[in-house]
Amino acid sequence: MAKEKKFVESITDMELDFPQWYTDVVKKADLTEYSSLKGCMIIRPYGYAIWELIQKQLDERFKATGHENVYMPMFIPESLLQKEKDHVEGFAPEVAWVTHGGDKKLEERICVRPTSETLFCEHYANIIQSYRDLPKLYNQWCSVVRWEKTTRPFLRTMEFLWQEGHTAHATAEEAQEETLKMLNVYADFCRDVLAIPVIKGEKTEKERFAGAAHTFTIESLMHDGKALQSGTSHNFGDGFAKAFGIQYTDKDNKLQYVHQTSWGMTTRLIGAIIMVHGDNSGLVLPPMIAPTQVVIIPIAQHKEGVLEKAGELKDRLSFICRIKLDDSDKSAGWKFSEYEMKGVPLRLEIGPKDMEKNQAVLARRDTGEKIIVSLDELETKIPELLKDIQANLLQKATERRDSKTYVAHNMEEFEKEINETPGFIKAMWCGDQACEDTIKEKTAATSRCIPFEQEEIDTVCVCCGKPAKHMVYWGRAY
Amino acid sequence: MAKEKKFVESITDMELDFPQWYTDVVKKADLTEYSSLKGCMIIRPYGYAIWELIQKQLDERFKATGHENVYMPMFIPESLLQKEKDHVEGFAPEVAWVTHGGDKKLEERICVRPTSETLFCEHYANIIQSYRDLPKLYNQWCSVVRWEKTTRPFLRTMEFLWQEGHTAHATAEEAQEETLKMLNVYADFCRDVLAIPVIKGEKTEKERFAGAAHTFTIESLMHDGKALQSGTSHNFGDGFAKAFGIQYTDKDNKLQYVHQTSWGMTTRLIGAIIMVHGDNSGLVLPPMIAPTQVVIIPIAQHKEGVLEKAGELKDRLSFICRIKLDDSDKSAGWKFSEYEMKGVPLRLEIGPKDMEKNQAVLARRDTGEKIIVSLDELETKIPELLKDIQANLLQKATERRDSKTYVAHNMEEFEKEINETPGFIKAMWCGDQACEDTIKEKTAATSRCIPFEQEEIDTVCVCCGKPAKHMVYWGRAY
Repeated sequence: MAKEKKFVESITDMELDFPQWYTDVVKKADLTEYSSLKGCMIIRPYGYAIWELIQKQLDERFKATGHENVYMPMFIPESLLQKEKDHVEGFAPEVAWVTHGGDKKLEERICVRPTSETLFCEHYANIIQSYRDLPKLYNQWCSVVRWEKTTRPFLRTMEFLWQEGHTAHATAEEAQEETLKMLNVYADFCRDVLAIPVIKGEKTEKERFAGAAHTFTIESLMHDGKALQSGTSHNFGDGFAKAFGIQYTDKDNKLQYVHQTSWGMTTRLIGAIIMVHGDNSGLVLPPMIAPTQVVIIPIAQHKEGVLEKAGELKDRLSFICRIKLDDSDKSAGWKFSEYEMKGVPLRLEIGPKDMEKNQAVLARRDTGEKIIVSLDELETKIPELLKDIQANLLQKATERRDSKTYVAHNMEEFEKEINETPGFIKAMWCGDQACEDTIKEKTAATSRCIPFEQEEIDTVCVCCGKPAKHMVYWGRAY
Repeated sequence: MAKEKKFVESITDMELDFPQWYTDVVKKADLTEYSSLKGCMIIRPYGYAIWELIQKQLDERFKATGHENVYMPMFIPESLLQKEKDHVEGFAPEVAWVTHGGDKKLEERICVRPTSETLFCEHYANIIQSYRDLPKLYNQWCSVVRWEKTTRPFLRTMEFLWQEGHTAHATAEEAQEETLKMLNVYADFCRDVLAIPVIKGEKTEKERFAGAAHTFTIESLMHDGKALQSGTSHNFGDGFAKAFGIQYTDKDNKLQYVHQTSWGMTTRLIGAIIMVHGDNSGLVLPPMIAPTQVVIIPIAQHKEGVLEKAGELKDRLSFICRIKLDDSDKSAGWKFSEYEMKGVPLRLEIGPKDMEKNQAVLARRDTGEKIIVSLDELETKIPELLKDIQANLLQKATERRDSKTYVAHNMEEFEKEINETPGFIKAMWCGDQACEDTIKEKTAATSRCIPFEQEEIDTVCVCCGKPAKHMVYWGRAY
């Protein structure tokens, strides 16, 4: 028992110290490890397996909406990065510069991509000639680098994995349609696969992506009441097209500029999963992205026939779920804690007494509930339970998010809520950046988005009292 | 007809100018495009779709042999790269150095990974303590950078995509077993998926990977008689373990060094596919890695019912193969050339006359043969044909490889063969590096490998006449 206790005790209570709880879970669930280069993380097999499941399911959704994958170089020459003025201002301060190839100093320094708009634009300028070449619906899976020194695994690292979609369209309408279509793909993916509810909306000008005409976002709320930007979709209008000369001949044989979009999701989603579903026993994984959906733990495995039966069940059930048998010589109690820490949705216990009764015990990670099931019914019961766990996680997350969403009519209420009960604050805004700045200064909260679903909770701006233009979600954010 | 001719004419004849033929195919089949940074390529959707099929099928084989995927940082601090003497000597001259992050000069410069042995070693030193932690069977999919200015799409580029397996074992025997197991996974993959026959063997000391105790390789032969190293598997012994201090406590509580391996395959395989199977009409893809296995081309598509029938067939057959319908307004002849260029294994033609007879015409890309098939039999006939094409490509490639493999007993024969009929030269070798150097100087051929299947074709070295130790495959190589 001493050993088992140690495994559990080493996690900090999330109510006492949420950041430390997060770090503990990431480490104890074997998701990442630090590398010797500060700010870079190693994604370990268990963490990477989650990313592979995210990738696979997102990629299917991209392909189903007509997108194709490509691979662009990881380097951007300085002169190319500088072609779009706002874009370079946004990114130049945080890029890694390559100045030497082998022993030789480069004539022009190149940066490691922080994002690939400039590369796609250059490529599009080469391959787009006619309206027949449009739309171009490309996506790329890769890693990007942004030079930051304050980092946290998955949430903010110098290098991170992501996908970046880049599309070119004949008209402004088509580009806008694409921007919103992909935002919806993201929101649906979060809800249906990650069991994370999100708020969809538009970023204010202050929070817009460097070079974008409009940035749309999905925002989720973590256990500690802080917001996490979980995916963004940008409409560039024809700004990049003009900077890079991306033109096509339309049906009337006239030269036109294309309209572009880009959209991205990153390994940060794994941080969201941890902070939305996790608890004081560790990670809690939605079945849709759990590398192991069911772990079989033999009870009294030294007794005759137990390991054989467990192995038989594993083989039988591997057709219906991602299943693992832990037949190592650790105690059953130790294993219980370990797979709780790793967030495996279902534990299947099988011991001599169960075998006598032709049954197994199924324990849910989300509720702790134990269900006794006949061995003959596992094939129907397990998929049912996995589906139920997936739905329950979404429901719990939605309830928690809603219970942490507050309304503020004035700055007094705003400050009180954000300090005493952190969460989303819904409040009206006049549209003036000065008020955003003031709110940030006073509360450390930023505008998360102007949600598509507007409510008129007041007529005046929460900050300056002038007539309000929009209802905005505010929050302290990761 | 003028248009159609143009499409075909723009490819150089492979017998006249093989390198130009290669460049033409890469370009005309829409596989890659140049980027503004010399030496870096853009992999376009059709090229990337081939890579995705390679990745998927290789990854399944890695997982089936117990390997797990991870992700390591793309940066290596200079001090870390320098830890293993031979390794740094091999790679330092060709790495890209990052010296600045944003505006700040770094205290220590870092390189973009040319390969990740040093990163895995550092990680293994952190996570391996006991014999219970072994073996570690990790793999990573990523891109790496080697600073070269003479580049060719897929074959040699500054940045390329690859997988790199890195494993750690308790004993030398286990490491050797792993090294050979993965070489066999590679060889089987080439044969069964890419339809490329390979020679398996060991590299000579001169051709060994920087820091390896043994390097094993699979070598294939291109249309032009040049060899291509298609995959390598290295046994490091405990050299890296000693340099990085990777030790574990064995069952007797004694500290031991681990034994390590690494193995890799790259986007270069796409170059091999082009140069092994291609012909003067363009690319020829083995069905196993063809993004489109069957293309439906409607004949007289303006006639009533043709497009509807073609669409119906597409929907029906999409359950049994990767199928595409080209209903664009280009002429049928133009489409024929285009999909020949793209190497689509089967073309399905359907027109009004076929519809009357309840039949379709299937045209094989590999043989040009046209087969009339009843529409009721497509579900059985298409998979049969795809299987047959896959087998036929392997057989033709094997016959061509064998017909271009020669025996040389002395340097006169060696030089005559390699100059007049380029291909593999089988010749005996004394084991002395001086003879390798002489042969390279005289013939531009290098030792490709000491094959596992030895033949005693002579008793003395082809170069110096001293007693021979091994039969070696020699060749000019990419």
